[in-house]
Amino acid sequence: MKIVVVGGVAAGMSCAARARRLDESAEIVVFERANHVSFANCGLPYHIGEVIKDRSRLLLQTPQSLHESLAIDVRIATEVLAIRPDRKSVTVRDLDSGREYEEPYEQLALCPGASPITPPLPGVDHPDIHVLRRIGDMDVIKAAVDGRSASGRPPITHGVVIGAGYIGLEMAENLHERGVQVVVVEMADQIMPPLDRELTTTMESYIRAHGVELRLGTQAAAFSRSPGGWLRVELTNGEFVQTDLVLLAAGVRPSTELAVAAGIDLGPRGGIKVDAHMRTSVPGIYAAGDAIEVEHLVLPGTWLIPLAGPANRQGRVAAENMCGRDTVFDPVQGTSIVKVFDMVAGGTGANQRQLDAAGVPYERVQIHPSGHAGYYPGTAKMQLKVLFEPVTGKLLGAGIVGFDGVDKRLDVLATALRGGMTVHDLEGLELAYAPPFGSAKDPINMAGFVAANLLKKDLRLWYPSEYPGATDGARIIDVRGPQEYAIWHLPGAENVPLPTLREAQQDWDRSRPIRLYCAVGFRSYLAYRALVQRGFTDVRTLSGGMTTFRSYHD
Amino acid sequence: MKIVVVGGVAAGMSCAARARRLDESAEIVVFERANHVSFANCGLPYHIGEVIKDRSRLLLQTPQSLHESLAIDVRIATEVLAIRPDRKSVTVRDLDSGREYEEPYEQLALCPGASPITPPLPGVDHPDIHVLRRIGDMDVIKAAVDGRSASGRPPITHGVVIGAGYIGLEMAENLHERGVQVVVVEMADQIMPPLDRELTTTMESYIRAHGVELRLGTQAAAFSRSPGGWLRVELTNGEFVQTDLVLLAAGVRPSTELAVAAGIDLGPRGGIKVDAHMRTSVPGIYAAGDAIEVEHLVLPGTWLIPLAGPANRQGRVAAENMCGRDTVFDPVQGTSIVKVFDMVAGGTGANQRQLDAAGVPYERVQIHPSGHAGYYPGTAKMQLKVLFEPVTGKLLGAGIVGFDGVDKRLDVLATALRGGMTVHDLEGLELAYAPPFGSAKDPINMAGFVAANLLKKDLRLWYPSEYPGATDGARIIDVRGPQEYAIWHLPGAENVPLPTLREAQQDWDRSRPIRLYCAVGFRSYLAYRALVQRGFTDVRTLSGGMTTFRSYHD
Ligand SMILES: Cc1cc2nc3c(=O)[nH]c(=O)nc-3n(C[C@H](O)[C@H](O)[C@H](O)COP(=O)(O)OP(=O)(O)OC[C@H]3O[C@@H](n4cnc5c(N)ncnc54)[C@H](O)[C@@H]3O)c2cc1C
Ligand SMILES: Cc1cc2nc3c(=O)[nH]c(=O)nc-3n(C[C@H](O)[C@H](O)[C@H](O)COP(=O)(O)OP(=O)(O)OC[C@H]3O[C@@H](n4cnc5c(N)ncnc54)[C@H](O)[C@@H]3O)c2cc1C
Ligand SMILES: CC(C)(COP(=O)(O)OP(=O)(O)OC[C@H]1O[C@@H](n2cnc3c(N)ncnc32)[C@H](O)[C@@H]1OP(=O)(O)O)[C@@H](O)C(=O)NCCC(=O)NCCS
Ligand SMILES: CC(C)(COP(=O)(O)OP(=O)(O)OC[C@H]1O[C@@H](n2cnc3c(N)ncnc32)[C@H](O)[C@@H]1OP(=O)(O)O)[C@@H](O)C(=O)NCCC(=O)NCCS
Repeated sequence: MKIVVVGGVAAGMSCAARARRLDESAEIVVFERANHVSFANCGLPYHIGEVIKDRSRLLLQTPQSLHESLAIDVRIATEVLAIRPDRKSVTVRDLDSGREYEEPYEQLALCPGASPITPPLPGVDHPDIHVLRRIGDMDVIKAAVDGRSASGRPPITHGVVIGAGYIGLEMAENLHERGVQVVVVEMADQIMPPLDRELTTTMESYIRAHGVELRLGTQAAAFSRSPGGWLRVELTNGEFVQTDLVLLAAGVRPSTELAVAAGIDLGPRGGIKVDAHMRTSVPGIYAAGDAIEVEHLVLPGTWLIPLAGPANRQGRVAAENMCGRDTVFDPVQGTSIVKVFDMVAGGTGANQRQLDAAGVPYERVQIHPSGHAGYYPGTAKMQLKVLFEPVTGKLLGAGIVGFDGVDKRLDVLATALRGGMTVHDLEGLELAYAPPFGSAKDPINMAGFVAANLLKKDLRLWYPSEYPGATDGARIIDVRGPQEYAIWHLPGAENVPLPTLREAQQDWDRSRPIRLYCAVGFRSYLAYRALVQRGFTDVRTLSGGMTTFRSYHD
Repeated sequence: MKIVVVGGVAAGMSCAARARRLDESAEIVVFERANHVSFANCGLPYHIGEVIKDRSRLLLQTPQSLHESLAIDVRIATEVLAIRPDRKSVTVRDLDSGREYEEPYEQLALCPGASPITPPLPGVDHPDIHVLRRIGDMDVIKAAVDGRSASGRPPITHGVVIGAGYIGLEMAENLHERGVQVVVVEMADQIMPPLDRELTTTMESYIRAHGVELRLGTQAAAFSRSPGGWLRVELTNGEFVQTDLVLLAAGVRPSTELAVAAGIDLGPRGGIKVDAHMRTSVPGIYAAGDAIEVEHLVLPGTWLIPLAGPANRQGRVAAENMCGRDTVFDPVQGTSIVKVFDMVAGGTGANQRQLDAAGVPYERVQIHPSGHAGYYPGTAKMQLKVLFEPVTGKLLGAGIVGFDGVDKRLDVLATALRGGMTVHDLEGLELAYAPPFGSAKDPINMAGFVAANLLKKDLRLWYPSEYPGATDGARIIDVRGPQEYAIWHLPGAENVPLPTLREAQQDWDRSRPIRLYCAVGFRSYLAYRALVQRGFTDVRTLSGGMTTFRSYHD
């Protein structure tokens, strides 16, 4: 058998490697347009930041090493120009020599990835405007930061990052760590658009506190050379920023030119359409990685999920099917994570906005547990949001932001989501506990308790998004201590500290709505239980307390 | 309703708190023999080590705070002397005044915990021999370390810890950090008996490298005062150790005296017998926590699992059932973890020894992935062992030891085990990946790949435990590079580096058994695939490679 793979990084090389292991006799050829294969895209920002000092550590394999270990014929600097399904061949060009030739295949895997979106704005072709996708992009940006660029310029001092997704934020951090003053421009009114807004505001403050400027809710409108030699970035809100360098990190677009030209179907979102076996619409042609769109575990329709984990595993699944196995790639859940300075944010499954947009009914809880036992040093409270089905409690998605233990809780929730588990299952999970790692009731158990209470109607919540409507005509009761109340409280709230509540409520009107809150929702939950069991008929407690409230309304 | 709870820490106080929330009108009385309730047992070693500087941080609640927030009547320094099921009452003694009285109950929760085992050895009542279970125990040990003991002695310089389970190891670390020279004595020939041996040897070396002495495979035989004023610990192997202080950390025994006297049934392991609703054999009496035995998710029979997570959740389940709900406590899986210096070890479900003993058939894989992407600084290889059912691939258990990301993988596996997932499910898990947190193919995916390959017979393994038998009459092929081979190799092994294998094998006898190995099992897997597809009929590759081999045989 003759297998040809287009693209030699995550999906492509995983596909080729797996194919070799399943079929020792196959001829396997990988074409890669760039000068490197199997490199760590995800490490690029960190080499610029010199967290990864040694550039060669990003180059996980070479054509030579892949030939030696897996007998794969890897041809770098070789672009596939066209696919000829009728002839079962591809036309390629050796970019060094310019030589073009045709290479036949029996099975073809299309793994061309995605390209950074370059908005068609005036001046966008300015030489100091960059994208970051490959080793070459990194080299150019790093040279500018180091003061080693071909132009002989000194190290840059100012940078603008367009887009506050994870690549934009990682680059903001890494440029900042190199002494560059960074401005991040983001069209949305929040960073990290895959997360619900209230999860992002604390991280925004944290990033700003580090001296990185965030301009949210605005966009780049045009780029120009200003008289002083600066690169001038005009924003749609009328402001402008002077800078040395611009990084475009406003998302990626699947690379589908080859597929389209070959008559391969695209999906509704513009990615290559595949079935669960990674087969495209053309027999013998598979596709995997950032170029394809895939079904979602929670949301209807197909989605573009340009992430390395799915890309690697899709490549592996494609290889299995090419080699005669019958393997299905499960729907994706879009688990993603980003570290910015010491903060971590991530999500899995659907977020609330996506559920709203898709009309999927859901319930939600927001809690603020510590990463590990509070009495053991080195922890902080995280914000943990879990979304689940109203009746069954089946998980739909989760988002977390915090410092320690965020990645762990995210992976546990990603696993539970994949396993079709419910919030009731979260109550019972038996997770590893010692003081440096968690709590006897882990944050995940806590989320399960609160969510299960909600479903069992042992708890009724009101949400920051319902303010002020939810408090109309209600008594707003702040059950925190008087000092906490004195610092800040909701307008109109009465302070009835929890220890005094059972006494104080005696002469209250039981039919008047009561809206409780405290710092995170625990004390107001105790108050809720005390009141409803005393005949109060319309009581709700604020989900996530003042902490969620303030991150929502900030 | 009148609820009485015996024991006011993890199980007892969680039970009382949950009962209050479910039943605001219940009268809830908690009896606690000691002077503290709701304290953090698990933090005790760390206050001795001054990692947790402030003692008061271990006292999570007081009778006062529990009265204020939950209207619970907590009576400390009050021992329950007897249960009278016939009269539905308990007899208690106020330990300060000596006053005894009877307290009626409608529902009783028995949560008396467990006590450290004190072996009946000569001299074991020596005043410098301690256990560590409560705040008072901690205070005495800390005073000895600080040089503040009543006797006016200077700070101790030498300590012996009997038992290398997690409490023993945590104490060894914390005493060591305080400048005490520590000897750990452990009956088993390994530390951390809940883990399979090959997972513990690296940690043993690491602990020794920190200057803590381990004496494995021996036991304390007697204690005596030696002429120089030392406390002398004789060991069963004839050796002895001179020390200032001994800590007995050789396990705990469920506290069942009250239950036995009241005619409550015990289970085969000597813990209080309960059903899944936490009901004992006597109507109206529930039990939870370290005192009970419970069903295991994987192993037959009932087990003693003296851990804080289960204790807390059992207490909560007991309360639900006492308050008329119908809640079942799921079987336990014994997820546990320990940090020693910077190393982390833990397990979930069954280990190999337990499966052997129970006659449960299993398969296993051992891999050595990095905690996160190797090119991003701050990671190290972990040892990850997964046990699963031979045909279905359903998870049975896992053990991990390493530095970064161990707790995360353990919790993911604990979740997957609870969810009844298989190794095939692990292949597809979509875990959070960015370079500081994992790899595009996470260690968990990798374990799934290897295990699934084994089940699909795409891979055949031989194990360190089968050496030398498994290599009898076989060609032993070391596919590592010549330098690696030169440093150390298996006796009789030929060095055929992977890049030369396809060439070298041409004239080999295809029917002669071949036993492959490399450093961790990856290169030998590639070699395996290359050979079996070339007609070799009896090829096996060493599970976990030389790394597992050496940790098994060290
Ligand atoms: C800076 C950065 C940071 C990232 N960080 C993370 C992260 O932390 N976590 C995460 O999950 N993901 C991350 N990603 C995304 C991840 O790298 C991608 O999802 C993954 O690489 C996609 O794999 P792929 O094989 O589909 O595409 P690619 O890795 O892009 O590989 C496609 C290859 O195909 C080649 N190619 C395209 N067309 C042709 C052609 N016609 N002929 C020959 N070759 C061709 C391209 O040159 C390219 O090398 C990051 C990406 C970047 C750029
Ligand atoms: C040093 C140490 C470290 C630990 N570290 C961890 C860890 O890292 N992770 C983990 O999961 N677990 C750990 N544990 C175990 C954990 O603390 C226990 O599993 C948990 O506390 C058990 O809860 P329990 O309520 O059953 O028993 P306990 O917490 O022991 O509470 C029982 C209480 O009942 C009281 N009592 C007993 N009899 C009577 C009576 N007759 N009358 C009145 N009161 C009575 C006792 O005084 C005691 O306070 C650790 C334990 C210790 C000692
Ligand atoms: C480097 C690259 C070619 C590796 O692919 P690979 O050969 O499949 O090797 P991996 O290191 O991923 O290991 C997975 C394979 O090794 C096997 N394996 C791993 N450890 C093993 C062990 N200890 N024993 C036996 N087998 C083992 C797995 O079973 C799997 O084989 P399978 O797919 O046949 O089941 C590819 O992953 C790549 O190009 N990565 C870099 C690009 C990238 O991902 N970029 C984006 C993220 S930064
Ligand atoms: C301190 C102690 C009394 C706390 O018990 P508790 O009142 O159940 O409180 P927790 O802090 O465990 O929180 C759990 C409860 O709060 C609720 N909760 C937590 N966060 C919440 C939030 N943000 N909003 C609403 N409810 C919340 C949970 O639903 C749960 O209530 P439920 O059981 O009625 O469902 C008890 O855990 C204890 O004694 N612990 C120390 C002893 C110990 O565990 N030692 C061994 C380990 S070191």
